[in-house]
Amino acid sequence: MNKSKVAVWGTGAMGRGIIELVQSKNSLQLVGVVARRSDKEGMDVGEALGFKEKVGVKVETKAGEMLKREKPDILLHSTCSKTSEAFPEIMTALEEGVNVITIAEEMAFPWYKEPELSVKLDNYAREKGLRILGTGVNPGYILDLLIITLTGASHSIKSIHAKRVNDLSPFGPSVMKTQGVGTTIDEFNRGMKDGTVVGHFGFPESISMISKALGWKIDHIEQEREPIISSVYRETPYVKVQPGMVAGCKHISRGYVGGEVKIYLEHPQQIHPHLEGVETGDYIQIEGVPPVNFVNKPEFPGGLATIALAVNMVPLVLKAPVGLLTMADLPVPRLL
Amino acid sequence: MNKSKVAVWGTGAMGRGIIELVQSKNSLQLVGVVARRSDKEGMDVGEALGFKEKVGVKVETKAGEMLKREKPDILLHSTCSKTSEAFPEIMTALEEGVNVITIAEEMAFPWYKEPELSVKLDNYAREKGLRILGTGVNPGYILDLLIITLTGASHSIKSIHAKRVNDLSPFGPSVMKTQGVGTTIDEFNRGMKDGTVVGHFGFPESISMISKALGWKIDHIEQEREPIISSVYRETPYVKVQPGMVAGCKHISRGYVGGEVKIYLEHPQQIHPHLEGVETGDYIQIEGVPPVNFVNKPEFPGGLATIALAVNMVPLVLKAPVGLLTMADLPVPRLL
Repeated sequence: MNKSKVAVWGTGAMGRGIIELVQSKNSLQLVGVVARRSDKEGMDVGEALGFKEKVGVKVETKAGEMLKREKPDILLHSTCSKTSEAFPEIMTALEEGVNVITIAEEMAFPWYKEPELSVKLDNYAREKGLRILGTGVNPGYILDLLIITLTGASHSIKSIHAKRVNDLSPFGPSVMKTQGVGTTIDEFNRGMKDGTVVGHFGFPESISMISKALGWKIDHIEQEREPIISSVYRETPYVKVQPGMVAGCKHISRGYVGGEVKIYLEHPQQIHPHLEGVETGDYIQIEGVPPVNFVNKPEFPGGLATIALAVNMVPLVLKAPVGLLTMADLPVPRLL
Repeated sequence: MNKSKVAVWGTGAMGRGIIELVQSKNSLQLVGVVARRSDKEGMDVGEALGFKEKVGVKVETKAGEMLKREKPDILLHSTCSKTSEAFPEIMTALEEGVNVITIAEEMAFPWYKEPELSVKLDNYAREKGLRILGTGVNPGYILDLLIITLTGASHSIKSIHAKRVNDLSPFGPSVMKTQGVGTTIDEFNRGMKDGTVVGHFGFPESISMISKALGWKIDHIEQEREPIISSVYRETPYVKVQPGMVAGCKHISRGYVGGEVKIYLEHPQQIHPHLEGVETGDYIQIEGVPPVNFVNKPEFPGGLATIALAVNMVPLVLKAPVGLLTMADLPVPRLL
């Protein structure tokens, strides 16, 4: 079997997981790793990321040089969330003739936020005969691709209602901050205004992907965030939440067609939801003929699933038609 | 919008449902209907099938003539379950330059039972620049495509265990017979021996589709059927089941890799399962990293879902690469 040559750009928690998973696959060969920060430059990837063994590939900081030298088949990109930030990095890969899978959330459906950059990416990828895919657990899988797949056996659909309930307890201080965990209600509200409390990143992308697949013309997309106020004491290594304080952020989004809510997505994220009897899980309800009532309990774990999707999609992307793709354009994902 | 021209071959319960659904879609135009039996030849399809309104298309019995005259983009084929029986009919469509979607169960993965016919179909479709797809609720969707999709976020998988529990109560006398409903245990066992009690049709196809997608080499596939013996009285318009008699057939199948069961599928089919506290539903459990525990309750209704899949796949098949395809080769199904 010819191995596919893979490079990874990004050495944070996701990049590290991607590198480990690539190493475990017989059909993939890791040929280069690029970090944004230079403090681990020149170290073996295994040493730099605390693996048990050396990897035989060194951490570099100049992506263009690595890509030109190693000529990977594909770059797995995990450095950022926004298309505007990912754009120059993806262009660097395309210039070197390298296909790209990115987990930047906006890139799951980049036409929503950045239509001009999307056209540029699509055109350049086609010109070079290459493919670009944005993926990840959410957006990219649970609240869009799985929903689309579950509409495949439908005669007609009135509305879609889906919810992903997860547990933030394993995450570090930066996630606590962006979800407002451990704040007072006043602090949470101020955080929403000044942009430090973000909630979920990706609802408009998911709604756009679903509506495009189903041929629905969305008039507008609304988003709302509200604090999940704890009635009990909750604690993680990074945060303590007293009763009356904020344990997380309930983020919802509505996609309207002709004045009616056709797609309603909900993502309440908090620490230790079970302390108040909340069961984590992925829930998809389709009101239509036939009705669909999907439950996956507990939920797909976000980090693990995003890492898996980035790696599992490699052979499907390499065989896909050229251009800027979404998960809905490709055959179903599957374990590599 | 250019409408796709659709012909339908088969006017049984499934063919009838497909014709109705095609009629409801703005992007499709019904141009021809072929029946196997000649008793309704020349009648308007609406009259022949008991619709409220005329359809403006007549029932014909000579498929080749209709296809040559109407030049449809695609034929929706629903006359049989076996590849050997579907083969000459599909070839007729290919000869006339027409793509095919069939709901013949074996055609969901025809290489399992009929590798030679599959190669012939694939070669001829490629030669003519056409596509053939086998689809349906099961095989084709619940116990194969959905399972594959749910492996997309996996790092590794130890085994797959899936179950589809449905209610046969709405079905007619022929289904009662093939599932052994209303027989004594002795009659059920004799029916299994003489081939009148069939159980589910499609397990080897589903297991083959999953294992091909995941790159698993299946050593062998086992199937077992056993009677579901009722402890209560159950009744439908077509059958009466006394306590101690057979209310349905529990059919299971195991796919082995290296001596271990990697894929276990179960499909207990009976009338009125709720009378003994059995909840209908589709259940998919993946033992792996991460674990997956999918439930859809109640189950996707078989007839409705098969009809929907046949129709919803039309645009995806028309855009697909040429040749003999499976659901795992195409982008995810979606409401048309």
